[in-house]
Amino acid sequence: MSNEKITPRSQDFSAWYNEVVQRAELADYAPVRGCMVIRPYGYALWENVQKALDTRFKATGHKNAYFPLFIPMSFLQKEAQHVEGFSPELAVVTHGGGEELAEPLVVRPTSETVIGYFFKQWIHSYRDLPLLINQWANVVRWELRTRLFLRTMEFLWQEGHTAHATEQEAEEETLRMLGVYTDFAENEAAMPVIPGRKSESEKFAGALRSYTIEAMMGDKRALQSGTSHNLGQNFAKAFEIQYLDKRNKLQHCWTTSWGMSTRIIGGIIMTHGDDHGLILPPRLAPVQLVIVPIYKSDNVDDKTKVMETVERIKRGLPNVRIEVDAREELSPGWRFNEWELRGVPLRMEIGPKDLQKNQVVLARRDTKEKAFVPQEQLAQKVPVLLDEIQKNLFERAKKFRDENTFELGSYDEFKKFMEGEGSKGFVRAYWCGSRECEAKIKEETKATARCIPFDRDNKPGKCIHCGKDSKEKVIFAKAY
Amino acid sequence: MSNEKITPRSQDFSAWYNEVVQRAELADYAPVRGCMVIRPYGYALWENVQKALDTRFKATGHKNAYFPLFIPMSFLQKEAQHVEGFSPELAVVTHGGGEELAEPLVVRPTSETVIGYFFKQWIHSYRDLPLLINQWANVVRWELRTRLFLRTMEFLWQEGHTAHATEQEAEEETLRMLGVYTDFAENEAAMPVIPGRKSESEKFAGALRSYTIEAMMGDKRALQSGTSHNLGQNFAKAFEIQYLDKRNKLQHCWTTSWGMSTRIIGGIIMTHGDDHGLILPPRLAPVQLVIVPIYKSDNVDDKTKVMETVERIKRGLPNVRIEVDAREELSPGWRFNEWELRGVPLRMEIGPKDLQKNQVVLARRDTKEKAFVPQEQLAQKVPVLLDEIQKNLFERAKKFRDENTFELGSYDEFKKFMEGEGSKGFVRAYWCGSRECEAKIKEETKATARCIPFDRDNKPGKCIHCGKDSKEKVIFAKAY
Repeated sequence: MSNEKITPRSQDFSAWYNEVVQRAELADYAPVRGCMVIRPYGYALWENVQKALDTRFKATGHKNAYFPLFIPMSFLQKEAQHVEGFSPELAVVTHGGGEELAEPLVVRPTSETVIGYFFKQWIHSYRDLPLLINQWANVVRWELRTRLFLRTMEFLWQEGHTAHATEQEAEEETLRMLGVYTDFAENEAAMPVIPGRKSESEKFAGALRSYTIEAMMGDKRALQSGTSHNLGQNFAKAFEIQYLDKRNKLQHCWTTSWGMSTRIIGGIIMTHGDDHGLILPPRLAPVQLVIVPIYKSDNVDDKTKVMETVERIKRGLPNVRIEVDAREELSPGWRFNEWELRGVPLRMEIGPKDLQKNQVVLARRDTKEKAFVPQEQLAQKVPVLLDEIQKNLFERAKKFRDENTFELGSYDEFKKFMEGEGSKGFVRAYWCGSRECEAKIKEETKATARCIPFDRDNKPGKCIHCGKDSKEKVIFAKAY
Repeated sequence: MSNEKITPRSQDFSAWYNEVVQRAELADYAPVRGCMVIRPYGYALWENVQKALDTRFKATGHKNAYFPLFIPMSFLQKEAQHVEGFSPELAVVTHGGGEELAEPLVVRPTSETVIGYFFKQWIHSYRDLPLLINQWANVVRWELRTRLFLRTMEFLWQEGHTAHATEQEAEEETLRMLGVYTDFAENEAAMPVIPGRKSESEKFAGALRSYTIEAMMGDKRALQSGTSHNLGQNFAKAFEIQYLDKRNKLQHCWTTSWGMSTRIIGGIIMTHGDDHGLILPPRLAPVQLVIVPIYKSDNVDDKTKVMETVERIKRGLPNVRIEVDAREELSPGWRFNEWELRGVPLRMEIGPKDLQKNQVVLARRDTKEKAFVPQEQLAQKVPVLLDEIQKNLFERAKKFRDENTFELGSYDEFKKFMEGEGSKGFVRAYWCGSRECEAKIKEETKATARCIPFDRDNKPGKCIHCGKDSKEKVIFAKAY
């Protein structure tokens, strides 16, 4: 890795993003167009995301399972909206073991259909419900315009799939899991999100209702960060997922699905990063504290003393994820820059002079503040500082979002606001609910209805586009 | 799940295996031939396998990463032996996004080639070595004769890939990871294994040397349970993985790869199970202790008291994985049978009479022993019993293997021993090392050279087949 400066975020957000992902060694492009490799540093971040989500899924009664990668093409065709939505994005296996297959196999773009097939086998009576399953897996969607983490042909995700006896239970589950995503995003990823319902044209192919959490990135664009779908009885009817109720009558189940993917890593990068590179929220950061020992490599005495102190400090912080960067061939400044670029929340510098004073230097990545801290206070101070950084990242992202969310008086203002290549933020506006207005707005401004937020006043108003009576305010934005 | 009796293991091992896997709800066949679904109970077992292995990989300095599912066909062709070995087993994507691809993509059967591509980008100097990477992933090999867990078209595994500066370091790594597998198999899965070297004809396609751990199943067949390969410079040369050494000279790296898969679950089932079903080693069992409360469902007072005690006992065993089976619609006997079939190491029965005596009944799955235990001793006694069961499973599997391992005097005896459809065990025999003898033995007896064990006397002898001087004793067996 070279130590040249990256393109500042403030100068070119898109170039900054690509450089940061690659230079911080989170991910890189694969030889197959649109695919990526997730490098160890990026994968460690993903493992922390997985742990935080998986714990929440298990605490809400879900169990993990693993379903097949290959789905017969005929399965997708059983649900009309579903196949229409996913057909253009499929990767298809036509040959296996040297022979052409009788029926082509689809590499799963999502697993509702094949899981529907199994749910039919597993569910017999009301006693088998609710069935609460999650899968951690790779999925493939043939994308033409790809971007590391944000949109790749293959990506990693979890997909929850559940079956219930009643519509109400399915709706409760759908919202519960959206709540889990909200909690994860805000409290682990420090990303403020707006939970809400998707419009008809933006909902999942085959769903009754889709819900989403939407976040504002540093360039004021929206990122859909997690979705939860009430599938109604659509898949239950297509795959005959039925149960005998208490009165011994056969009923179709109500199913849900919900997913969060490696895309969230793109969200973390674009929410918190700055001109110097990544800033990772402490709760998810693979390295929370980097210790950079400073000494002249030919001074064996200094080196020994410094490294002894480093080891002692490390032992005193058993619950902090620490990396010691003692590469003697690189100057302290070079190492500082590298760990700044890689977004480590806290940096500790320690040299011979610090030893004499029983102190270290602690530098915060978020505010760039540096302070001397007595060594005996570190065990108490480091966890407190990590908490503070976590909170500060959330608060400043929230402030940024709120400052860049507007209510506009007219469609002319709206159009003007959305002009140009970039984004100026979110607009909360009334919308009559018609597909036509939504399509027109998208066509004329490139802004889409991100969601109908739960948190809104219920005063009626007039649609920003057509002026008709409107019950619901919507978040409009240009989105990833 | 019905509670009918399964085919006894002693009567038909193969039927027993299939029934146990499906009835215990570990896995089931998928709509696509040769694929499987891993059900929650089986997946929880796999998660415990993953945790035990992943901890060991990280403790030996490895980092996880994720590489692409799709590999260009041309990559496989870069290593001649490799493409020859894997070509007949490939699943090939020819269409994506509705169009035919210019170059077909292979669904990874293993990732040496695509990882080789990235290692070339990541490795520049001796400072970048060793590079120690692991991946948890799904892979696909087009298999004609499949069997749940043991041989499926898609399976889950981990594949370690490392690069080193010298042949010696690569060899040390290869053996270190075989040691990790041995430790895992014996101390977590309670499976005694024989670590050793593979013969030339049994080694991995593209390897310099392959090592394996071989275990004896309950039907006396061998199961290859994990492999570790020294790839020499074969892949480094094919993919130009080079580094500048300390004298600034360009050198090819030495690489290794090693893998363990969901196959190990088949091994656990076939090592420990009995006529009544699964027996899971406590360290990996998703449920270590099942509590079956017993009361008449119309006696509210009894029910309340029993369930209160169950909750108290549960709280007293915070580090034990416990399931409470309070299904009132099923008799205690039905529930006992089900948890026996599912292999839970310990069962606790508790009813109103036990409450009066402040006791419970504990039943061991391995020995079927039942004993009354005072409630106040449970916190101490349960972990001790789980340890005892773990040890007993290992010891009895080891005894079984040793009792069924033979040294035979002549090739006639050897042929006689291998006669018939079943297996009578392992044979340790001298082998001259020639491919011809190995092929003849396989053809005439269906036994293969499982490994050249590390643990052997070095006295020379005569090849069991051709009678020529022979330095090495080999384990021969019929294998899965």
